[in-house]
Amino acid sequence: MTAYSFALSMIVASTLFARSVTAGDALKQQVDGWRGAHETQILSTFDRLLQFPSIAADPKGTDATAAYLKQQLEDRDFHAELLTVSGAPPVVFGSLTTPGAKRTVVFYAHYDGQPVTPSQWATPSFDPVMRSGPLGSGEHVVDWRSAKPPYDPEWRLYARCAGDDKISEWAFLAAFDALKATGRKPSVNIKIVWEGEEEAGSPHLSEILRANAGKLSSDLWLIGDGPIHQSRRPLLYFGARGVMGLDATIYGPIKALHDGHYGNWVPNPAAMAANLISELRTDDGHILIPGFMDDVRPESKAEREAVAALPPVEDALKGEFQIARSETNESVTNAIMRPALNIRGIRAGKVGGEAANAIPVDAEVSLDFRLVPNQKPDKVRTQLEAYLRAKGWYIATSVPDKATRLAHPKIIKIDWEDGYPAFRSDMSSPSARAVIAAETGASDLPVAVTPTLGASVPLYIFDDVFRTPLVGLPIANHDDNQHAANENIRLQNVWDGIDVYAAMIGELNW
Amino acid sequence: MTAYSFALSMIVASTLFARSVTAGDALKQQVDGWRGAHETQILSTFDRLLQFPSIAADPKGTDATAAYLKQQLEDRDFHAELLTVSGAPPVVFGSLTTPGAKRTVVFYAHYDGQPVTPSQWATPSFDPVMRSGPLGSGEHVVDWRSAKPPYDPEWRLYARCAGDDKISEWAFLAAFDALKATGRKPSVNIKIVWEGEEEAGSPHLSEILRANAGKLSSDLWLIGDGPIHQSRRPLLYFGARGVMGLDATIYGPIKALHDGHYGNWVPNPAAMAANLISELRTDDGHILIPGFMDDVRPESKAEREAVAALPPVEDALKGEFQIARSETNESVTNAIMRPALNIRGIRAGKVGGEAANAIPVDAEVSLDFRLVPNQKPDKVRTQLEAYLRAKGWYIATSVPDKATRLAHPKIIKIDWEDGYPAFRSDMSSPSARAVIAAETGASDLPVAVTPTLGASVPLYIFDDVFRTPLVGLPIANHDDNQHAANENIRLQNVWDGIDVYAAMIGELNW
Repeated sequence: MTAYSFALSMIVASTLFARSVTAGDALKQQVDGWRGAHETQILSTFDRLLQFPSIAADPKGTDATAAYLKQQLEDRDFHAELLTVSGAPPVVFGSLTTPGAKRTVVFYAHYDGQPVTPSQWATPSFDPVMRSGPLGSGEHVVDWRSAKPPYDPEWRLYARCAGDDKISEWAFLAAFDALKATGRKPSVNIKIVWEGEEEAGSPHLSEILRANAGKLSSDLWLIGDGPIHQSRRPLLYFGARGVMGLDATIYGPIKALHDGHYGNWVPNPAAMAANLISELRTDDGHILIPGFMDDVRPESKAEREAVAALPPVEDALKGEFQIARSETNESVTNAIMRPALNIRGIRAGKVGGEAANAIPVDAEVSLDFRLVPNQKPDKVRTQLEAYLRAKGWYIATSVPDKATRLAHPKIIKIDWEDGYPAFRSDMSSPSARAVIAAETGASDLPVAVTPTLGASVPLYIFDDVFRTPLVGLPIANHDDNQHAANENIRLQNVWDGIDVYAAMIGELNW
Repeated sequence: MTAYSFALSMIVASTLFARSVTAGDALKQQVDGWRGAHETQILSTFDRLLQFPSIAADPKGTDATAAYLKQQLEDRDFHAELLTVSGAPPVVFGSLTTPGAKRTVVFYAHYDGQPVTPSQWATPSFDPVMRSGPLGSGEHVVDWRSAKPPYDPEWRLYARCAGDDKISEWAFLAAFDALKATGRKPSVNIKIVWEGEEEAGSPHLSEILRANAGKLSSDLWLIGDGPIHQSRRPLLYFGARGVMGLDATIYGPIKALHDGHYGNWVPNPAAMAANLISELRTDDGHILIPGFMDDVRPESKAEREAVAALPPVEDALKGEFQIARSETNESVTNAIMRPALNIRGIRAGKVGGEAANAIPVDAEVSLDFRLVPNQKPDKVRTQLEAYLRAKGWYIATSVPDKATRLAHPKIIKIDWEDGYPAFRSDMSSPSARAVIAAETGASDLPVAVTPTLGASVPLYIFDDVFRTPLVGLPIANHDDNQHAANENIRLQNVWDGIDVYAAMIGELNW
């Protein structure tokens, strides 16, 4: 047993016992007390933050959000500034020195959200609405502004970015206010990095971090992103899958053709797209691209133990998602320790009442790869393109002209998104242990510790630039519909998140 | 050699020789002369007809179109009435007796069109626009109302139903006017059946025909639908493929889920839909449903000869459609002598800029089968459903509830459209020979004769009810974009169509 895996076993084991009374209890009680007296104020200002239309592709929306967040930091006596490079939403940077503190912690979160499809939302995505519970559970809309606190902690506030992840910024600010109100000072020097294009793949983050490397030096990064464990236990994660997306267009005839006259003779791009997907992955998610799994780092014993120690959530999730099976017969965490190929969307011709008896002109497929250590995005791209060529595809990088169309029987245009690799950090560093201890002190439930998130957070960037320990610190409910319509945050997760952030600001010591 | 195939060989052979001067020439010259003096009038009133939004699902639009067409017949001293059953657009019926005529011919056409997707149209689908040529050919919009006739015969009028198939009604009426103006009387008694829900699969046509069987008795049906041969030769067809469509929904999780957190564990309905399609057909159109080809009637020697006699159009079509290959290496007519499985549309999640990193909640696939003799729609349905069940699918007929979702790993809801079988009629009957002769007299180019259209026309209904010979009499250009956006009719096809209809009204004798 290596030192690493021994330390990890202790960490995991610690989650199996009920927590004892610690210094964290006193802080938690004080923070809860302050929060109970300020619920309306916390939600009112959060409500304002959620109204900014902060999608990375909308500079006006992200600029306004960043300005608002910067002002929030300045109101709390932080030094604050916007770190910018051309063409990127600003990073909100803040810093506050604590006299006597020997450690510096950077609190990272992002204020941008995934694009929205308005028609899929029950209410507009940037017009926050409180509901008494999850949509479809018999819930009703709550006029929380007229209600008297304390509010029902099962209420949920619906808005894009609510859980992913403006709540991380807001819980930090509320926790800071609570500490200040109770006369406590931070135990560490604080730095803030709130990004504005995480949902677009953080294409400029590395450049901004490098340009400000001195300013951003620290002993620990806390990555405030992602949801907590599906069991509702607090979660700390030490890695995340990488991601690489693409949008592919497959070309049929230059104009839509009557499928009676030409069906059987003119190639059908919808069928070609379907057959392509079936050559990429099986129904159980097995990826068919040759060599794709070659570089995957085998799971370590420590990782396997950590995953095995997580409480089972699979039956509950199947009930919640209303699915009779998972793609493979294993735990969800075991599944996300492997890479995935997701079909995000497919479109060709028309369906339902709009369907016409026509061979469509093209088919569009959007997909993403979730990568694990040590897969490299560039290599995956090379592997996929080589596989497609072996299957007879001509890969275009722009819309094919007539000569190209006439020269190649199977044409696919691929628009690659900027992707990034996976990362898993050391679960046994002193700072990691300090974070686990602080989180345990701030929580009523045992803390779940996992080697990786299934989702992608650009952890590799922080590691590339700073080689500093980092820990993922999510607070959102797992069923917050992040990336989908009707994203929401459950109030109890807001309250718990404030406790967690208060512990990270006030109790971290190593 | 049977009498049938002998006769057919003669018919086919006749198309290979240039036509000699016949009685048809005199008529054609007269009709062309009248048309040359009336181009503006013909187009003005056709323009009005095209402005009616006649989609079968829109009763207001079809009622208005039917009323307008009925009035046109009455203006020409036809007895005219609307034949109706509950829930169906009316059939416009007309009749005109010719003293001394021994034969009665029914002219069938339909006045409804395929549904439209407005965003795909260069100009609104029911606001006819004249262009100097096909879209994308460097053409321009023509202000034909200010132009002086004769108009350029390469101009095209763009509107839904222009080619499919209001032009058949309009060419009939113009031909009738031309004959009258030149003092000729019809050679046959005339009946008119203009249907309003052909593009919806003619679900009520059989009922209407049966209810009016006495009124509709005749010696021949002329089916004015479909495009002419791709070589631009006039076309007569003696059959059509059947059709049966369906819209299928495949179910994933009850709400969209972050594909990072759950990709690899929650089944992806877009991938399931793709894999399903790949199990239904190969890229070259081969249909994988067991037993699907069992009932297909082998092609007769006569059919093979007729197909072989058609002029080659494949290279020209590949250039026009900008495709490098056909699904199989054969002529387009050889291909449509077989059944087809067309993917009309597929939709799941979002693509392009709207794509979110989410596992979609469902996937929708719209497809149709084109059938040939002797396939039966009910049997194909049974075969497909049995195949799906063998592949592990649960077939739902309504949106599955939670219990259903939790009980079945693979759920597909299928909404079947009303379909109908293929039909091919006798190419050697006296009436068929008379039609070929009349068409030859009315045309500058040799007539192409084919055993079947690739498209579906409900010929079987006429045969079921009347057991009367029928011949398909298309006049639209093959590149009229029927069923797709930017449907159009080429003016030369209008003029040629008037010649053809004049011959069918004034020259048919057997």
